[in-house]
Amino acid sequence: MQNTACQLLVVGSIGIDTVETPAERRVEILGGSASFACVAASYFAPTAMVGVVGTDFPEAYMDLYRRSGIDLQGLQIQEGQTFRWSGVYEENMDCRTTLSTDLNVFESFSPEIPENYRDIPYLFLGNIQPALQLHVLDQIRKPEFVMVDTMDLWINIAREDLLRVIARVDLLTVNDSEARLLTGASNLRKAARELLQMGPRYVLIKKGEHGSVLFSKDSVFILPAYLLENVVDPTGAGDTFAGAFMGALAEKKATDERSLRQAMLLGNVVASFGVEGFSLDRLQALSREEITERADLLRAMMAV
Amino acid sequence: MQNTACQLLVVGSIGIDTVETPAERRVEILGGSASFACVAASYFAPTAMVGVVGTDFPEAYMDLYRRSGIDLQGLQIQEGQTFRWSGVYEENMDCRTTLSTDLNVFESFSPEIPENYRDIPYLFLGNIQPALQLHVLDQIRKPEFVMVDTMDLWINIAREDLLRVIARVDLLTVNDSEARLLTGASNLRKAARELLQMGPRYVLIKKGEHGSVLFSKDSVFILPAYLLENVVDPTGAGDTFAGAFMGALAEKKATDERSLRQAMLLGNVVASFGVEGFSLDRLQALSREEITERADLLRAMMAV
Repeated sequence: MQNTACQLLVVGSIGIDTVETPAERRVEILGGSASFACVAASYFAPTAMVGVVGTDFPEAYMDLYRRSGIDLQGLQIQEGQTFRWSGVYEENMDCRTTLSTDLNVFESFSPEIPENYRDIPYLFLGNIQPALQLHVLDQIRKPEFVMVDTMDLWINIAREDLLRVIARVDLLTVNDSEARLLTGASNLRKAARELLQMGPRYVLIKKGEHGSVLFSKDSVFILPAYLLENVVDPTGAGDTFAGAFMGALAEKKATDERSLRQAMLLGNVVASFGVEGFSLDRLQALSREEITERADLLRAMMAV
Repeated sequence: MQNTACQLLVVGSIGIDTVETPAERRVEILGGSASFACVAASYFAPTAMVGVVGTDFPEAYMDLYRRSGIDLQGLQIQEGQTFRWSGVYEENMDCRTTLSTDLNVFESFSPEIPENYRDIPYLFLGNIQPALQLHVLDQIRKPEFVMVDTMDLWINIAREDLLRVIARVDLLTVNDSEARLLTGASNLRKAARELLQMGPRYVLIKKGEHGSVLFSKDSVFILPAYLLENVVDPTGAGDTFAGAFMGALAEKKATDERSLRQAMLLGNVVASFGVEGFSLDRLQALSREEITERADLLRAMMAV
């Protein structure tokens, strides 16, 4: 029996991060692709999370998920420590260095999709090992729209599995350097064309503070990013974008290109709020009115 | 007596370039801010050029100017060699290294504005020494709209003069790294606010392949760049953009913000053609129809 409430399923990592920016250092804060994506999506559609945490996972973070109304039936709690990540940002916030990665319980994670999640129409496969993404795809039934994210690590060490994933999804999202790494093409438009030939209907290339570009076989949509005056912590911006984007599609129950463009604008706006605070500090405290207001501002910034 | 034909005056450099890209090397090709800006502007408004060349300047390049209908009354021909520049582009075309700069006749250049140019309503001060830009501003009368470009060199060695120039113009254009260098602010929006406090009504920040942003005291306009599949030679893209932008304003005889936004779109489009060839190869051979067609494509790429 399908869970009638949930419209979006998110599978990804859950981590406890230590983040250092030029201004401040924060230890043991909530992170992970599933955390950012689910909370961002929750403003638009009922969302279910599949991921793993250790027995050390703070109850306060569990409460944060619950306050956002996230369905946690698929959240596994394993004996051991939660995944840990730490990194440091350079002056411009456009480069970061990973200081440490401890997989902990994430090392043996196998995403098991509860029976009543398997008919959820929208699926976001956050950045995890491609073999695990394939395992998710094998469990779900006739999804309406599947978006997948990945990273340079998997392109380098699990390319074959990744290509299998890409061939089975509707939308692949990567950043510009990953697009070049995957294809060998240094020009973005050429890279996108090669990625589209790998199977997905859409390729969404993220360019950080410079916005994002959506490619289909016969169209290009360029969305500049909302220009912020204060970026506090860019961690999770891409996952926040993806979560809000998929949430907006799930809310509208539409996947035509116009809807995708509007969902990207909302994703961009929600991500712009997210980076104004550390972790999910700002992201969890939004109102739909704030999102609409900033979306109108961004539209005005783009009007010719 | 005013030259009734010319609506835009461009003062800048004229050079003979040697350009090396990953694909090809071209020697002794036409370059310089005034060359790119004037030819780009000529599609929109009758344009006058003030600059200097040596007695070695090829007649073929003079013919190119004439074919574009550029008024050359203010072009000085000095005994000696024309300004020479050579540079090499890296794989992505986003970084370039200057190999040599020989000022030659440009070293003793003093921009003298012919009497019948002094009432031309639109003025683009291309990237030359700020003291020379001041000398131009001292000669012209009540211009409608003045745009100035500069570079890191002048920010570093002629800051005082440059600040005097900036205080006297309507629009300052710099690239993102120059904006940071001029203000010390790493955030673009903060940098723009500081630049606006230096006097100009508008600040236009160029971000290369990522587009450009127009700031006023109470508005922001973000324009993505037209996405090209083949960038042949990015030299002069900023000057081409500026020339077409000012030409479009001069044609419309309007400087309200909506007109500025539309002129930026046209500037972006003309620059996108320019970089599809070396030197002015592609730029000089455009039709107004091609410009309109690509402007419509760019609008479609931006439509939410």
